[in-house]
Amino acid sequence: MRLLHEENIEDIALGAAVLGTGGGGDPYVGKLMAREAIRQYGPVKLYTLDELNDDDLIVPSAGMGAPIVLIEKLPAGDDMINAFQSLGKYTGKIPRATMSIEAGGLNSIMPIYVAARLRIPMVDCDGMGRAFPEIQMTTFTPKGITASPIAMADERGNMILIDAVSNKWVETFARSIVVNMGAEGMMALYSATVKQLKETAIYGTITLAEEIGKKVRNARINEVNPVDAVRKSVDGYLVFRGKITDVDRRVEGGWNRGDAKMEGIGTFEGQQLQLDFQNEHLAVRVNGEFKATVPDLIAVLDGETGEPITTETLRYGMRVAVIAFPCAPQWREPDALALAHPRYFGYDVDYVPVEERLG
Amino acid sequence: MRLLHEENIEDIALGAAVLGTGGGGDPYVGKLMAREAIRQYGPVKLYTLDELNDDDLIVPSAGMGAPIVLIEKLPAGDDMINAFQSLGKYTGKIPRATMSIEAGGLNSIMPIYVAARLRIPMVDCDGMGRAFPEIQMTTFTPKGITASPIAMADERGNMILIDAVSNKWVETFARSIVVNMGAEGMMALYSATVKQLKETAIYGTITLAEEIGKKVRNARINEVNPVDAVRKSVDGYLVFRGKITDVDRRVEGGWNRGDAKMEGIGTFEGQQLQLDFQNEHLAVRVNGEFKATVPDLIAVLDGETGEPITTETLRYGMRVAVIAFPCAPQWREPDALALAHPRYFGYDVDYVPVEERLG
Repeated sequence: MRLLHEENIEDIALGAAVLGTGGGGDPYVGKLMAREAIRQYGPVKLYTLDELNDDDLIVPSAGMGAPIVLIEKLPAGDDMINAFQSLGKYTGKIPRATMSIEAGGLNSIMPIYVAARLRIPMVDCDGMGRAFPEIQMTTFTPKGITASPIAMADERGNMILIDAVSNKWVETFARSIVVNMGAEGMMALYSATVKQLKETAIYGTITLAEEIGKKVRNARINEVNPVDAVRKSVDGYLVFRGKITDVDRRVEGGWNRGDAKMEGIGTFEGQQLQLDFQNEHLAVRVNGEFKATVPDLIAVLDGETGEPITTETLRYGMRVAVIAFPCAPQWREPDALALAHPRYFGYDVDYVPVEERLG
Repeated sequence: MRLLHEENIEDIALGAAVLGTGGGGDPYVGKLMAREAIRQYGPVKLYTLDELNDDDLIVPSAGMGAPIVLIEKLPAGDDMINAFQSLGKYTGKIPRATMSIEAGGLNSIMPIYVAARLRIPMVDCDGMGRAFPEIQMTTFTPKGITASPIAMADERGNMILIDAVSNKWVETFARSIVVNMGAEGMMALYSATVKQLKETAIYGTITLAEEIGKKVRNARINEVNPVDAVRKSVDGYLVFRGKITDVDRRVEGGWNRGDAKMEGIGTFEGQQLQLDFQNEHLAVRVNGEFKATVPDLIAVLDGETGEPITTETLRYGMRVAVIAFPCAPQWREPDALALAHPRYFGYDVDYVPVEERLG
C-alpha cells in the first residue's frame, strides 16, 4: 500500500494519457478533480492486488462518451459518486475499493477522485492496460467477467442500471443511454472479486503511468528529448514526426470519430501520415502502409514537450511525434484479440504485432 | 372483487382495443397469452381500488414500442415477468397487485397475464383511460407520481432499470433502450400506493372495456349495427364511413408513425379523411377540417363487425367506420392537457373538446 497525494496526480495523468492512446479523456479535467478531492478528503490508499483479500469486491469507476464533450461539459463529480453508490444500493453489495477500467487521462484519474471522496482505497490495476472505445473490450470479457450490473449517471441526477446478457449488449444499451445523457455519462461496472482480478486484470497500471510521467518530467528538467523519454519508457517505436495538416472529427454514436493527416518533417520530410480514431487511435498509416493497429498502442505527443495529445485536442498546425508500442500480452490471446482486432474496426488486414512491423 | 376467467378475455380485449384508439397493441397477441395463463394458473382476482388497503403497493405492467413489431415478434411472456420481478428485486418492495398503465388490446391484457402467472391480483383502473404513445402521458404525471424506478426487459434476458429525474426523462431513456431491444420491450413502472391511485387513476377501465366488448358481441348476435353499438357504449360520434385508399406507416424512433387516407362511402361519399398516428391516433381531418384530436379518442372500426382496427393493421381497401369520443375528464385539466395537447404533437391548433366539434 502506498498513498497517492496531490503531487502524484500530475505524473499519473501524463503517463495515463500516453497509455490512453488518444482516448480515455483529457487529463486536464481529471487532474483538477482528483487534486481537489485529495485536498479536501486526504490522500488515497493505493493497494496492489496481492495486498487485498481474495473475496474483496472491487468496483471500477469510469466515464463513457465522446471526450470532446468534456471540454465544454465538465464532469460534475456527483454523477460519478451517484453511479458508484447506486450500484451498491441496488445490488446490496458493498465494494472494498475502486479501480480504473482503462488507462487514460480521465479514466485513470476519476477512480482516484471517487476513492478520495468516498474514503475507500484504490487498486493498482485495470482491465485494458490502455483505453478502448467499447465496453466489452477488456481483458475481463474473454474470461467471463460480466460488465453487468452497471450503473450509469448523468449530472442531472438520472441513474440507469443495466443487467444485460453479454458485455456487448451492455455496450449497445450504454451507448444509446450515453447519447441521451449528452454524449457523456459516468459509470460503475465490471464488479469483480480480487481473486477474479488476479486472474484477469492488468497489474500496476497506475504505477506504470506514474513512472512514464516521471521520466517525461525528468527529461524536460534535464533537457533530454521528452519524446524519446516517452518512447523508451514504453519500449516503443518512433513512427513519425510531422505537422498536422487536417483533422476530420465528429461526435457520432457517442464517440469522437475521425482521422488526422500529417506531413513529415525532418527525417520524415515528404512522407504522409493518416491516423484514424474512434475515441482512441485505431491505426496509423504512413504513405498508405500500416505501421501499427489496434490492439497495439499509438500515441501522439507534442513534438517538443512529449505531452500526449488526445484525439479531441488534435489541431491543424500542431507539430507532433507519433509513437507506437506493444499492447499487454493478454490482448494477443485469440479470444481477447477477437474483441479488438483491426477487422472489428473495419480494417481488412491481419493483426501484425507492432514489434514485427517496426522492430 | 371478481374473478377474470378465460371467457372474460375476449370482451375485455375488444373493448380495450376501442379505448386503445389505434394503439396499445393488437388484442390478438394479448388474448392468446392471457387465456393460456389463466388456463394454466387459474382465474385472476380483479379488485376495485376501494377493496384494497391504502398503503398496498401496485405495480403496473406494460409493453412499449412499435406495435407492428409484435406481429412478427410475439412477446415471450418471460420478459414481462422478468421486468416485474426485477423491479421488486432491485427496490426491495413487494407489490400487492398489478394493473394496466393504459387501455389497449395488449396493454390491458398483459397485466392479466402477469397476475395469472404470478398469482397476484389485478386492480381495475389505469393511468390514461386510453392509450398514449409516450411514458409521461399519464394522469399520474401531473400529480407528481413518478414512472421511476422502471424495469424494462427483452426476450433475450436483458434487464434495465431507469431511475430518472422526470417522467419525460424516463421516456427519453426508455425509448432508445426499446429501439435497441428491437422496437419492443416489456416494463414495470409507475409503482404507486392504493392511496395515490385513488387520487389519480382512472377507475374501472377493465370493467368499462368488458362492457364495450359485451355490447358489440350482443349487437352482432342480435344483428344490430355493431359500429353503432360501439359508438353508443362510449358516448361517441360517427366521424366517417369510408374505404382506406392509402396507408403511410413506418417504424421510427420506436413508434409506428404515419397516416391513413380514406374516401367516403354512403352518406360520406365525396369526402376525404386523413387520420394521423404515432402508435395511437392523434387527429382526424375530413376535407382538411379537424374533427377530433388528442387527448380525445378516435377509433377505427371494421365497417361490418365493429371490430377495432389498430394502426399496425390498417390496410388499403378496408371498409371502416371512424368514431370519436371524449377523453376522461382528468385530461382536460390544464397540467394534464399540456402533456397530450395537439400542439405537443406538432399541430398548430387549440384543443377543442370533441363534443363541441361534433355534438
